[in-house]
Amino acid sequence: MRNIKMTIEYDGTDYCGFQVQENTGLRTVQGVLEEKITLLSRETIRIAGAGRTDSGVHARGQVVHFLSQWTVPKEKIAVAVNSVLPKDLVVKSAEDVPSEFHARFSAKGKKYHYRIYNDPIPSAFEDKYSWFIPYRLDFEKMTEGANYLVGEHDFSSFKSSGSVIKNNTRTIWSLDLTQQGPLIEIEVMGNGFLYNMVRIIAGTLIEVGRGKLKPLAIKEILSAKDRSKAGPTAPPKGLFLTEVFY
Amino acid sequence: MRNIKMTIEYDGTDYCGFQVQENTGLRTVQGVLEEKITLLSRETIRIAGAGRTDSGVHARGQVVHFLSQWTVPKEKIAVAVNSVLPKDLVVKSAEDVPSEFHARFSAKGKKYHYRIYNDPIPSAFEDKYSWFIPYRLDFEKMTEGANYLVGEHDFSSFKSSGSVIKNNTRTIWSLDLTQQGPLIEIEVMGNGFLYNMVRIIAGTLIEVGRGKLKPLAIKEILSAKDRSKAGPTAPPKGLFLTEVFY
Repeated sequence: MRNIKMTIEYDGTDYCGFQVQENTGLRTVQGVLEEKITLLSRETIRIAGAGRTDSGVHARGQVVHFLSQWTVPKEKIAVAVNSVLPKDLVVKSAEDVPSEFHARFSAKGKKYHYRIYNDPIPSAFEDKYSWFIPYRLDFEKMTEGANYLVGEHDFSSFKSSGSVIKNNTRTIWSLDLTQQGPLIEIEVMGNGFLYNMVRIIAGTLIEVGRGKLKPLAIKEILSAKDRSKAGPTAPPKGLFLTEVFY
Repeated sequence: MRNIKMTIEYDGTDYCGFQVQENTGLRTVQGVLEEKITLLSRETIRIAGAGRTDSGVHARGQVVHFLSQWTVPKEKIAVAVNSVLPKDLVVKSAEDVPSEFHARFSAKGKKYHYRIYNDPIPSAFEDKYSWFIPYRLDFEKMTEGANYLVGEHDFSSFKSSGSVIKNNTRTIWSLDLTQQGPLIEIEVMGNGFLYNMVRIIAGTLIEVGRGKLKPLAIKEILSAKDRSKAGPTAPPKGLFLTEVFY
């Protein structure tokens, strides 16, 4: 039995998230991959992903794995699978990995990007890939606020309710903001992320950028361990899963 | 009567081109603009555009004008119109211009971009905005071939049949290729363009890039004044109308 690891890219706009939702008929990334690879390999394929991205969230470097007896040479996997996938879902690379490898449980960390389009006038091309903010954002203050989140913290204030996870301590390795024309990008790397954590961080930093919160308030929000103290959950369309580290 | 000039941007993916096609019910850029501005200004609006982009072609700087008695201040036009437009069509700026101004007939030239995604593996995000070419393109040879097109020439070989225009002489001011990772961009500026001219130039330069034509062949194709000597018409999705000069 082979264990095959694939790095995939998808435009999440027309997917109801990564994970299969049984008996719903909804189009999901996992569902499309399982259907197409089952077709090619002539065996029932089950895909596991590194992260369960929500509906509308994109990925440039999601990682999945699956067990298979498919005999295709590894250098032909990407081309073969891409030949039957829709255009908004692409296998970037594939390789054989040891049987212990698990896309989710072997992951040591992840990198995400959140994109903000900050201009009085929107862009016809950016609507599906960023959050449009027409009022002026103070980039320096956002950067200052972001610094308080770096390191090991209890991120309870930055977790959507509904999550059953008990241990809310995570380490953010880096949290960098860049600005290029109207585009502000938040790049965050860490050892793990709670449910909606990146989107709540983005929503809170925007509150800092528009002056509704002072940069130092981020520190107080962390200490409060209370979701209601942080800013809103930024919309999924601005979020990209960029890389998974093993 | 005011004469209002607007610079607009659109993702052409879901439009059947710029121009209204009477009694077809097809979604066109002109049609959507006329419908929405008619609604706002409460008078029947007729839009004229600088160029009639084809179905699937995009624009970052298309220019239109319309005559109106609408009393809205000019600095509020863009925001007002954008509030009722779909997300894939945006007014970037608007101003009052003299009554003689005509978006098409006053134009002195245009700038287009054609985008090529050149990599063995496609991109989930680039499919609607570029032509995916999986085989290796020789960028230097393409640049060399492009140089023969600069200047005043009879471009009959680079015009789709069906066009009724008699004078096929145009001047290309500049034709520059840039490469950034897998993305090759052709930027072309000139005083006017024949039907499908930019897309046939792109299709022919790709034949040079893949070695099917020598760079010098471009010179012979120009002299032949025969459409069948040039390369294929590149697909519309890679083409952007970037700017109109007045």
